[in-house]
Amino acid sequence: MVQINANYLKLKAGYLFPEISRRIKDFSSKNPGADLIRLGIGDVTEPLPLACREAMKVAIEEMGTEEGFRGYGPEQGYQWLRECISENDYLARGCEISAEEIFVSDGSKCDSSNILDILCKENRIAVTDPVYPVYVDTNVMTGRTGEINSIGEYQGLCYIPINSENEFVAEIPQEKFDLIYLCFPNNPTGAVASKEQLSSWVQYAKKNNSLILFDAAYEAFIKDESIPHSIYEIEGAKDCAIEFRSFSKNAGFTGVRCAFTVIPKSLKGKAGDVDVDIWSLWNRRQSTKFNGVSYVVQRGAEAVYSQEGKSQIKRLVNFYMDNAHIIKSNLTSAGFEVFGAVNAPYAWIKTPKNMGSWDFFDFLLKNANVVGTPGSGFGAAGEGYFRLSAFNSRENVEKAMQRIVNSQ
Amino acid sequence: MVQINANYLKLKAGYLFPEISRRIKDFSSKNPGADLIRLGIGDVTEPLPLACREAMKVAIEEMGTEEGFRGYGPEQGYQWLRECISENDYLARGCEISAEEIFVSDGSKCDSSNILDILCKENRIAVTDPVYPVYVDTNVMTGRTGEINSIGEYQGLCYIPINSENEFVAEIPQEKFDLIYLCFPNNPTGAVASKEQLSSWVQYAKKNNSLILFDAAYEAFIKDESIPHSIYEIEGAKDCAIEFRSFSKNAGFTGVRCAFTVIPKSLKGKAGDVDVDIWSLWNRRQSTKFNGVSYVVQRGAEAVYSQEGKSQIKRLVNFYMDNAHIIKSNLTSAGFEVFGAVNAPYAWIKTPKNMGSWDFFDFLLKNANVVGTPGSGFGAAGEGYFRLSAFNSRENVEKAMQRIVNSQ
Repeated sequence: MVQINANYLKLKAGYLFPEISRRIKDFSSKNPGADLIRLGIGDVTEPLPLACREAMKVAIEEMGTEEGFRGYGPEQGYQWLRECISENDYLARGCEISAEEIFVSDGSKCDSSNILDILCKENRIAVTDPVYPVYVDTNVMTGRTGEINSIGEYQGLCYIPINSENEFVAEIPQEKFDLIYLCFPNNPTGAVASKEQLSSWVQYAKKNNSLILFDAAYEAFIKDESIPHSIYEIEGAKDCAIEFRSFSKNAGFTGVRCAFTVIPKSLKGKAGDVDVDIWSLWNRRQSTKFNGVSYVVQRGAEAVYSQEGKSQIKRLVNFYMDNAHIIKSNLTSAGFEVFGAVNAPYAWIKTPKNMGSWDFFDFLLKNANVVGTPGSGFGAAGEGYFRLSAFNSRENVEKAMQRIVNSQ
Repeated sequence: MVQINANYLKLKAGYLFPEISRRIKDFSSKNPGADLIRLGIGDVTEPLPLACREAMKVAIEEMGTEEGFRGYGPEQGYQWLRECISENDYLARGCEISAEEIFVSDGSKCDSSNILDILCKENRIAVTDPVYPVYVDTNVMTGRTGEINSIGEYQGLCYIPINSENEFVAEIPQEKFDLIYLCFPNNPTGAVASKEQLSSWVQYAKKNNSLILFDAAYEAFIKDESIPHSIYEIEGAKDCAIEFRSFSKNAGFTGVRCAFTVIPKSLKGKAGDVDVDIWSLWNRRQSTKFNGVSYVVQRGAEAVYSQEGKSQIKRLVNFYMDNAHIIKSNLTSAGFEVFGAVNAPYAWIKTPKNMGSWDFFDFLLKNANVVGTPGSGFGAAGEGYFRLSAFNSRENVEKAMQRIVNSQ
């Protein structure tokens, strides 16, 4: 009789975003006229850049000709795209990452999940709290944890608290972990890590032979020039870190689907005492279980690096960061304590009067018709916080701020 | 110290297609003038249908407007595409498969690999021999097998031989298996299964509470009207089968990337003795680890079901099947024993004079400058066979046949 993977049954039933949808639906059915503004999920709203659209249309034309038709592409991505990425995102910032070390994919969520495929189950794993839920859930699903406890922590995972005292940057642990998830600019808190802070992590990882999974999906939103965009800006990171990057947020590709993962050739793991090349494992995984990203989409991603593409993307990023500034300044003036929203498109807000995260969610939904994300949905240490996203039209962001301020 | 998933080290080093590439490269460097014709890998060659291209261009235009822009889509696929599939591929053939039971993805290779995520490792698993290597390799990678033996079989997997005596349709085993991979029209042998044969498998699965993973990526190539296109044409299959389908081969989407998987709501697995809904597990897996298929690509797939799309796809399929006919008739006339190539785009050829598969590969490469795929690459029982694909231009197929015939 076919047995299912019972680890799935450990997953918390009330998953964050479905629970938000349920409450919105409930509210809307009771208040059919309400004009809700959604600053919850981090999804972009502005049109796809012209340079990307034009490149994709050319690619579609090519696909209609005998000479230009492309069937299966390389599972790792087309060489021309990998070279663009290497040159613009890495070599230009002084990181020696070659095209071969870049694996193009259809999303960072997939990659940061699938990476567990090539790693042993017995590794000791650390995440921050609060944390992007996918890191935790994929560990649960693959049998790397025990059951959940009363505050929503899974046995076997270590949660490193991030809070206002440590400026939402995880402190170097005393304990030894094999695998550590770091995300900067951070989702959900909007925090960034300085070069010194990242250096300490790289030193820790090298000393303990740990692997850092570095999620840099929001790097384009960094304004402060002293903040690293890539973990590979840190000396030694090529021996201890994998980096996830995406076109979703900088170029508005959440519906187009393109991302990439960097696995340096020098990165080693162990099988018992024997060194194993992690690049080769991932290459084998991708070749066996993946067929590469749509040719049309890869041409769109390539256009991100053209001169027009670069300036269009810059405008997009600035637009969202102006939204972030509007959120931060309005709420700060109104007496809220607001973190993030300077080098990241997320504002992380202390709830007023020590309200619970879900209570504040319900309060804003009812009194301001604004949807955000309860901090506790990202982990126990997120209780008492609330995330607002800068991804919306200017009009909606301004209206939402006015409504929130008036609701107080 | 980070430990890797050591199951990867069990994988055969000389993987089929890289080994073919190596031999081609070696030959080409010694024979720089040789005009090779590739009938090896099953990749389409004809231009993308106009209906799909037009729909994709409209989608790109929409993405450039504020009203038409789409961010994250549903992880399961857009409802309009799922409904098209349900109506055209299922309801129209008498299969009660609803839109909700269809999960749109970027490839059948991914889906048939990823499905193992939601299943327990301890299931007893059967594959055919020869077999599409991905089924085997993904079981190895996820720790469901032991080491490989001298004839290339992994311990812990059961290989059901398919050969000319059983017309390349696996016979119902005496033993009880929990999970069985079936692929019809078959890759690599081009065989199809009759309604009676599939019914026996469904009966077996229902009796033993087994799950059938049914790969129907080549269903569009079935000409014989009595042959089922879907496992759900068999009574009871909704209680014991998952089906994988793809736009890769019928609509030329190998470079565009779109496929789908059907998981009936009635399908149950067990966690110990407790019934668990497989649809919910897969839904959770896809929501957590996947972000859905590109909006632009889904609009292209939708166009496959338009009136123009249907007739363009029919022309494509007929074109490749005419190639298959040319391969079969030429080689049969020349004295070869040729299987498949009637309801499938693959010809499965007995090598002449009991030559080994790789010897015949080398012989054809040298004497006809034609590349095919050695049968032994698909499993021990494929030794002495050779696969030729019908995916190429008419000119190349005709030239290749002439050369093969002349080389004998």
